Amino acid sequence: MRDKKVGVWLIGALGSISTTVMVGALAMRKGLVSSTGMVTASECFNGIDLIAVEDLEFGGCDIRKGTIRESANNLLWETRVLDPRVLGEIEEDFVHVQRAVKSGTSRNSGEAIQKLDAITARRKKPLREEIECLSRSIQSFKKENELGEVIVVNLASTEPPLDLQYCHYNLAAFERCLDQNEFESVRASTLYAYAAIREGCPYINFTPSNGALTPAMVELAERESVPVMGNDGKTGETLVKSALAPMFSYRNLEVLSWQGFNILGNMDGEILAHPQNKESKIRTKDQVLSRILGYSPHSKVSIDYTPSLDDQKTAWDFIHFRGFMGAKMSLQFVWQGYDSILAAPLVLDLIRLAEFAKRRGEAGLMPQLSSFFKAPIGVNEHRLSEQFRMLTNYLNNVRDVRQGLQLVNKKGDACR
Amino acid sequence: MRDKKVGVWLIGALGSISTTVMVGALAMRKGLVSSTGMVTASECFNGIDLIAVEDLEFGGCDIRKGTIRESANNLLWETRVLDPRVLGEIEEDFVHVQRAVKSGTSRNSGEAIQKLDAITARRKKPLREEIECLSRSIQSFKKENELGEVIVVNLASTEPPLDLQYCHYNLAAFERCLDQNEFESVRASTLYAYAAIREGCPYINFTPSNGALTPAMVELAERESVPVMGNDGKTGETLVKSALAPMFSYRNLEVLSWQGFNILGNMDGEILAHPQNKESKIRTKDQVLSRILGYSPHSKVSIDYTPSLDDQKTAWDFIHFRGFMGAKMSLQFVWQGYDSILAAPLVLDLIRLAEFAKRRGEAGLMPQLSSFFKAPIGVNEHRLSEQFRMLTNYLNNVRDVRQGLQLVNKKGDACR
Amino acid sequence: MRDKKVGVWLIGALGSISTTVMVGALAMRKGLVSSTGMVTASECFNGIDLIAVEDLEFGGCDIRKGTIRESANNLLWETRVLDPRVLGEIEEDFVHVQRAVKSGTSRNSGEAIQKLDAITARRKKPLREEIECLSRSIQSFKKENELGEVIVVNLASTEPPLDLQYCHYNLAAFERCLDQNEFESVRASTLYAYAAIREGCPYINFTPSNGALTPAMVELAERESVPVMGNDGKTGETLVKSALAPMFSYRNLEVLSWQGFNILGNMDGEILAHPQNKESKIRTKDQVLSRILGYSPHSKVSIDYTPSLDDQKTAWDFIHFRGFMGAKMSLQFVWQGYDSILAAPLVLDLIRLAEFAKRRGEAGLMPQLSSFFKAPIGVNEHRLSEQFRMLTNYLNNVRDVRQGLQLVNKKGDACR
Amino acid sequence: MRDKKVGVWLIGALGSISTTVMVGALAMRKGLVSSTGMVTASECFNGIDLIAVEDLEFGGCDIRKGTIRESANNLLWETRVLDPRVLGEIEEDFVHVQRAVKSGTSRNSGEAIQKLDAITARRKKPLREEIECLSRSIQSFKKENELGEVIVVNLASTEPPLDLQYCHYNLAAFERCLDQNEFESVRASTLYAYAAIREGCPYINFTPSNGALTPAMVELAERESVPVMGNDGKTGETLVKSALAPMFSYRNLEVLSWQGFNILGNMDGEILAHPQNKESKIRTKDQVLSRILGYSPHSKVSIDYTPSLDDQKTAWDFIHFRGFMGAKMSLQFVWQGYDSILAAPLVLDLIRLAEFAKRRGEAGLMPQLSSFFKAPIGVNEHRLSEQFRMLTNYLNNVRDVRQGLQLVNKKGDACR
Repeated sequence: MRDKKVGVWLIGALGSISTTVMVGALAMRKGLVSSTGMVTASECFNGIDLIAVEDLEFGGCDIRKGTIRESANNLLWETRVLDPRVLGEIEEDFVHVQRAVKSGTSRNSGEAIQKLDAITARRKKPLREEIECLSRSIQSFKKENELGEVIVVNLASTEPPLDLQYCHYNLAAFERCLDQNEFESVRASTLYAYAAIREGCPYINFTPSNGALTPAMVELAERESVPVMGNDGKTGETLVKSALAPMFSYRNLEVLSWQGFNILGNMDGEILAHPQNKESKIRTKDQVLSRILGYSPHSKVSIDYTPSLDDQKTAWDFIHFRGFMGAKMSLQFVWQGYDSILAAPLVLDLIRLAEFAKRRGEAGLMPQLSSFFKAPIGVNEHRLSEQFRMLTNYLNNVRDVRQGLQLVNKKGDACR
Repeated sequence: MRDKKVGVWLIGALGSISTTVMVGALAMRKGLVSSTGMVTASECFNGIDLIAVEDLEFGGCDIRKGTIRESANNLLWETRVLDPRVLGEIEEDFVHVQRAVKSGTSRNSGEAIQKLDAITARRKKPLREEIECLSRSIQSFKKENELGEVIVVNLASTEPPLDLQYCHYNLAAFERCLDQNEFESVRASTLYAYAAIREGCPYINFTPSNGALTPAMVELAERESVPVMGNDGKTGETLVKSALAPMFSYRNLEVLSWQGFNILGNMDGEILAHPQNKESKIRTKDQVLSRILGYSPHSKVSIDYTPSLDDQKTAWDFIHFRGFMGAKMSLQFVWQGYDSILAAPLVLDLIRLAEFAKRRGEAGLMPQLSSFFKAPIGVNEHRLSEQFRMLTNYLNNVRDVRQGLQLVNKKGDACR
Repeated sequence: MRDKKVGVWLIGALGSISTTVMVGALAMRKGLVSSTGMVTASECFNGIDLIAVEDLEFGGCDIRKGTIRESANNLLWETRVLDPRVLGEIEEDFVHVQRAVKSGTSRNSGEAIQKLDAITARRKKPLREEIECLSRSIQSFKKENELGEVIVVNLASTEPPLDLQYCHYNLAAFERCLDQNEFESVRASTLYAYAAIREGCPYINFTPSNGALTPAMVELAERESVPVMGNDGKTGETLVKSALAPMFSYRNLEVLSWQGFNILGNMDGEILAHPQNKESKIRTKDQVLSRILGYSPHSKVSIDYTPSLDDQKTAWDFIHFRGFMGAKMSLQFVWQGYDSILAAPLVLDLIRLAEFAKRRGEAGLMPQLSSFFKAPIGVNEHRLSEQFRMLTNYLNNVRDVRQGLQLVNKKGDACR
Repeated sequence: MRDKKVGVWLIGALGSISTTVMVGALAMRKGLVSSTGMVTASECFNGIDLIAVEDLEFGGCDIRKGTIRESANNLLWETRVLDPRVLGEIEEDFVHVQRAVKSGTSRNSGEAIQKLDAITARRKKPLREEIECLSRSIQSFKKENELGEVIVVNLASTEPPLDLQYCHYNLAAFERCLDQNEFESVRASTLYAYAAIREGCPYINFTPSNGALTPAMVELAERESVPVMGNDGKTGETLVKSALAPMFSYRNLEVLSWQGFNILGNMDGEILAHPQNKESKIRTKDQVLSRILGYSPHSKVSIDYTPSLDDQKTAWDFIHFRGFMGAKMSLQFVWQGYDSILAAPLVLDLIRLAEFAKRRGEAGLMPQLSSFFKAPIGVNEHRLSEQFRMLTNYLNNVRDVRQGLQLVNKKGDACR
């Protein structure tokens, strides 16, 4: 047990992933569920002094009304993942967390999201004022719970893409934007990121929203000595893609077409039914292929809302490729996974690794976390195995430094 | 152009893969087809002085009667891969190759194979005599075509597994076996391997037949300074498996079941319809999963003969896995590829790399070729990306040695 | 409400399907679940005076020890189908039913089943005595619950196929068999059927076990004026097959191969992992195709035990067919359904329709129920649409007779 | 052999389907290919005096330049369906047909199609004049080849949907439209249909273009005693849908979602990449489900252009359904078929059956052909088996009439 607990501030705290993160952590704490699916629970992390899940304290904000209890009920019964009786056992913990859930912002997040905002008549505060408001939420969360550190994770719905302009590439210019209330240049995700980083909180953008970790914001993170990383958690179809696509390169097989069709039925799916918001998602998914293959085959990624599926995302990918003597062949896959169940353990991983990085004095981007993201900022490597190697290399370096010597590390070998 | 051509001696010369190897090489020579699907044609091999496909001279042996022309006709029209008019253009080359196709042996290869043997009344020659006979075939192929080197590739039908005994682990003991005509201890593949290695020919076992490269035979190869490698070309379902399985480890997802169902309709499928022969195949496929995951999930690989598919192998794999909070999810894939079309370019790769290794004075196993095999002898690594790294590391070493210095090699980087 | 309730005697009462039948009926009675999946709940049955599910009283027998409560818990939580809280609400009803569950017989059911038998030292009673014992169970069930009628349904594990001999084709010969204790000529399913029919109970064989409704037993049913039907409930892959296969005939497309691979993880799957028991299942599945197409394409049905799937049967079917100018094309399907959830409502349907037939004085086979079975006894029609037409024709006849006139019936039209 | 041959006038004569129709007919005539895939070649048609394929004479029109020979070469080699040597053997016949291919019209067919029109500067003729021009083409085809009858089949690219107005529901009003040159009220397909019917030619609309067989045009067909039918040949995904969807009704399973994703790479796919043209296709596909089920589940049909697939349409359908106690289950299918290969034999069927209907004096719609169409005009029945029954009933009636008596017809029985 550490002296002080570490806080986790979830943006979109009532959403599917946040709920699963919290339910999972609370249930793990009581030994009701296992840590399967958490990368940091694998033996590759033996000897790495990560914060224990038990030592995390949850809070956050959301634009919707409602309780975590309700979200948990809806989500986990619909996906049939959790025995309702388990929910009963963590009932009290919900009450505690619920108190730490504050009102969020949907500023300039596009119609689909703004429609969800419970405070419909939210007045247009000046930007600086809104940021102060978010900062105060984090500060009081920290104070009330006597937290040593707070990690902020963006799990809100995907915003429409933001067209990056000069002010997003330069911190000083961006500060002027804020001063002059240039509403169009910021989205909710930008305000959150700015507030978090200025408060010294490591910030993880698990969504595709590109308004969050703009180059200006990374500059801020470097200046403030805060580790940050994004974008877009790699949980399903893209995960498989990044594992499979290198195979075609290794075998010098030419990918002719890679068509991917996703259907899902949770709120994420509902928001992504809006073309603008979908656009963000598809952009982060799109680059994976051409980066891995070195060329751009005919490719399409579609996402369709299918309510009956709830949280169970289903994806069909059809890969058409050419082999020897021009022969055309194909590989298809069907992925059926619970979106939030896949995402939640990775969020816990990222929290633990961000806290660790902060403790080690790292600042700015965390390329060692590239395997967790569809579009890892500042990293060109999209092959899953190579991204994972970046993580194990990082762990090996950490171990070596700590041990003050260059021993061949057995665990490192095992995890390769 | 080199001084002397390099010979390729194909065991099972009239089979699907051999035919495709020869048709492909002859058609490439005339610029009628591209080299897609050949690993050694990718840019990772830039600067590596491999023998050109044009400089290969084909020959081999088979237990069936028939001509390469017929095999090519049947195969390539059935798979619809090659324009029949292309076959017309390489007609004459067939005549040349045909002359170099000799009679093979089916000794102790199991009923399914022996039934195919055209010389039904083949008398049981003493083992030494039979080996001499095979050796002479290779010698005369070499002499008649003025070849500098001959590479032998086993592409014959899969034999039943051979229960390895003391004599298979010790060369001296094995020699005694031969002297004493212990028929049960050798299969056709053993005789071929012995003859080839003793003639100084690099030997590639592209089949699962474990009678070929026994430890005793590897000992022989080391003694004779001959590079050898096997077993079982990794062309389809197992290839995908070795690319996908690591993903589950990287994400700490627990594979509960991995069920694979293969259907195919070529001669390979017909032979594998026999339980004994199928057994060999399934053994080499089986170990991949447990080696990659570190545990053995419920797993099954079945292979069924489905004549209408001809050479188009189709595989359905159903992977059931457990994630966070015990949730069960699944990944399915369907692979549809032409067996011979996938195998043939790899055979050309292996020929080129084996010839290269011989020229460099390598002896015994070639672990750098592990990515080509389902069950690479002497290699525990089954993850495709790591196996491929073994190959690129080898290439980088070769380049470094040749350049006599430790420059950071750009090509090596590109191919990672 | 009728004067007297109708009893349902389930053979294999602790198995997955029986449990689901009872849980479903009890939960429906309390309005906790809907009747979706019950054919007799569709509007085609409007105006047909079937017994209400509320008026059914459950009992039965099993060779295993255990309680329905346990079975329900295991099954329904594993399949995540039913909210555990619903189980709580029908807790008391279980106690009532439990009292009516007696010990069954596993005589000559093959090793796989006999191993499950809780009474390992069951002495070999004379056949007549064993039948009396089963009869008394049914009689006391009837008496204790003041039932007007009892319907018997065989839901026990699949037995190995019984080689039918003269005594199975002729009732008098079969009676002699019983008299002479020819143990090898009867299986458990035979004894149950004989006892049930002689007690005047309509008998449904929902399993593939061919020992149950032999021609001799159908003769008995005719003599005793008892309606009977079987074999093997058509719930999953075969259901789809019987819907799809006619399409190929209608279009004059030639089916070349139809390969079906089933994987499942419940007790049914475990028993079917035994080659002998599997044989029965595969036989009933096998005839569907050739009967529909009029010829026998290359075809295979396999069933593999995959524990992690529990009750969720998954089937991959690959259909290869030839069209115009000899072009080969394919259709694949993947069926993912809960075995017991699919079967249970059909069992309720069959109970209601058997009770109805008995009340109407029908005797012997009920061909109108062919759409419910993989291998409907005495019916050559396997096309699902035509089988369903047999059912609606029957309903229309019933309505016409009852109305005493030949009106065009609107409901009949709607259900066509 | 009949006195006179029957002409077939194909609109879109250089397209994939037309080409396959002609190649197929010509190759059948020489005994080079079988009639598999032609419904009228099945034994259900024994005793029905249909015109022989040998007695058909082909002609048509297209807006593109090019030769049938070229189309055939591209198409059939790309799909690998036909041995190129077979094309050689029908070379001369092409020359003959080619002479009968005239210039067509793309009037008001939407941008995507008009761009293909070789005569870019096509002047806007008055409508009546354009119709005369089309009529004369048909007349001269008839005269030059001494044809007894000409059947017209629309196989042109799919036009955008036409918003039907008063003039499309009333023949007199439509005639006024033509007189007044109301360009916006007619599409190319309308002009073709009008010209054909007025020339007494049976007209088949194999495309989804709803401008062709408007109610006004059906009125014209009735007046002129010409049999007509459409719309949209049912060849692939929708065929499977109409075979599978009834299964869910028969079992009282509730379809929650039916998501269909089509990918294809021929000209049809290219045209359908245009949202307007796609709209027509999706409309005819959409109604099938709700008509069969009696309710409208969440449903989507998408069509995406994937060039590498050429003529091989691939469709993935995901069907999510609810069963007993609310359990959700799924059925997926993957259809891989050559679009033109599936369509061509049906076109030959429709030609034969339309000619037969004309000979029998039928006029207006031919509901007996409903099984051939995705959106059969005037027919509400979408279940494949029931549609097929409409055809066999028709055949039985024809036979009965001809035989002048009500014998139980054996063939009718066999084909049911």
